[in-house]
Amino acid sequence: MRGPLGAADTAGGSSADPPLGSDFPLTRLQLLTQQWRSEAPAERNTEVKSIPTVAMRSSVPLYLCLLLCACLGVACVAGVCVWNSQWHGGFAWDDSGLKFNWHPVLMVSGLVVVYGFGAVLYRVPLTWGGDKLPWKLAHAGAMLLALVLAVVGLCAVFQNHATNHIPPLYSLHSWVGICSVFLFATQWAVGVGAFLLPCSPVALRVLLKPLHVWLGASILTLSIAACVSGINEKLIFALKGTVNGTLPYSALPPEAVFANSLGALIVVFGLVVLRILSNRSWERPEPGGQDTAYRPLLQEENE
Amino acid sequence: MRGPLGAADTAGGSSADPPLGSDFPLTRLQLLTQQWRSEAPAERNTEVKSIPTVAMRSSVPLYLCLLLCACLGVACVAGVCVWNSQWHGGFAWDDSGLKFNWHPVLMVSGLVVVYGFGAVLYRVPLTWGGDKLPWKLAHAGAMLLALVLAVVGLCAVFQNHATNHIPPLYSLHSWVGICSVFLFATQWAVGVGAFLLPCSPVALRVLLKPLHVWLGASILTLSIAACVSGINEKLIFALKGTVNGTLPYSALPPEAVFANSLGALIVVFGLVVLRILSNRSWERPEPGGQDTAYRPLLQEENE
Repeated sequence: MRGPLGAADTAGGSSADPPLGSDFPLTRLQLLTQQWRSEAPAERNTEVKSIPTVAMRSSVPLYLCLLLCACLGVACVAGVCVWNSQWHGGFAWDDSGLKFNWHPVLMVSGLVVVYGFGAVLYRVPLTWGGDKLPWKLAHAGAMLLALVLAVVGLCAVFQNHATNHIPPLYSLHSWVGICSVFLFATQWAVGVGAFLLPCSPVALRVLLKPLHVWLGASILTLSIAACVSGINEKLIFALKGTVNGTLPYSALPPEAVFANSLGALIVVFGLVVLRILSNRSWERPEPGGQDTAYRPLLQEENE
Repeated sequence: MRGPLGAADTAGGSSADPPLGSDFPLTRLQLLTQQWRSEAPAERNTEVKSIPTVAMRSSVPLYLCLLLCACLGVACVAGVCVWNSQWHGGFAWDDSGLKFNWHPVLMVSGLVVVYGFGAVLYRVPLTWGGDKLPWKLAHAGAMLLALVLAVVGLCAVFQNHATNHIPPLYSLHSWVGICSVFLFATQWAVGVGAFLLPCSPVALRVLLKPLHVWLGASILTLSIAACVSGINEKLIFALKGTVNGTLPYSALPPEAVFANSLGALIVVFGLVVLRILSNRSWERPEPGGQDTAYRPLLQEENE
């Protein structure tokens, strides 16, 4: 298969695939592992210094989509910063209410924008030549940065709730958000263990890759839902129409229009990321393979 | 490619693909159309009465996932009905506040559950044998039912807002929700025109299929975000802790736990649907092709 994140599923097929007489995962896994072991080591470990298909596959639509993705990501971070500095007093890490303002900024920056950039990293043609390992490290590094931003963003809201004696984790927004971060942390730890540690067995990678791919897209979907519900919740609480002369949310004052537009921008960013990831012809060409033919995970270098 | 909805993207590759010297869409389209025209008509129009690979590909995990999907879908509909009858007085189509209660029920049933069932229809092994056309009609019919439910659900909330002099479409929830329905209606109309009308040109189908697939997954993502923010919003408004003795939302009274769980259930349903759709080995086998090899759209029957 090709999952939403675009990587190869071991259940997918090509002429190089094992017999498909059984879909039972363990049987398929044994077949794939046998096939990999039977390959000549030289063939398996071939280091490809140049990918001749790079120029062929780096198309104008891909560059336009990546540019759109970058612009939308920067706009999302700028938008959430402007919203919280313009209408909510800016930022501070003390017991004033300003600590809360870090929460939306860090969650949007980490769980959506840096996460999205990390996810599309392999789609940047610059990363297609040479060894894959440095780009795998960069992918893991970007995701770690995203995770750290998200965790600090969670600290901001937990501490703010504690200061103001508000119970934590009661709203559906918080349930979805905390699940996103928990799944993201699990995904990152398992991903590093399985795909970066040299000692991890090939069989484990074969089993985990489709789950890694699907969970990656699922976490982005959860993050979008958490952002939409969080912005909505914040505007309901902030724009009551009775406090310091603000218009109510239902009258769509400038802050409401701005933050709603920010929410729409976040949604569009997420969908563009998923579009880039789902386009198979924009995937990193694997060494020695046909340009667009499916290559099982076990034939990849450094996988 | 294989998009999130799992159907074939024309840019994906197999040995039957046209030369990949250019990724420019129009060039690719011309190449694909030329290839299709050069095929023998008999080969192109072959009607396959039996699919020998059906038994091979209908695995236990697929059945378990479809069963899980069905159970989660029924639980979502039951849950949203119980929530609105148990805690909000049930249903009526008059000027009482009870008309609003149709809104969550119809949106969850239409835009999430029936939509999800319609999307995974081609993954049910029962639909794999024989002509594809009846199942395409069933897919379009299920999506029409989903669309009608969603539109009636929108009428309920618009009329409720008008009765209570509440401006429509001010919250981010409503922006995301109305965009979902608008995109869904567009997707349905364009889908019927392009993929069901016999007069629609092949070139149009080739262009639209990857967009149809990506937009299908995007609409489900938007629907999930709309449901999460809608349930969150409703609980904030309903559980203020000052009206008729209810506990506030922050104290997590039984209604909050129930509706939050309903939201979590909707999210899980959506992710299971996306998982089923993204698994290439669970796709409907196309006639005459290798079991899992990529087959260009133009070689499909009734496509």
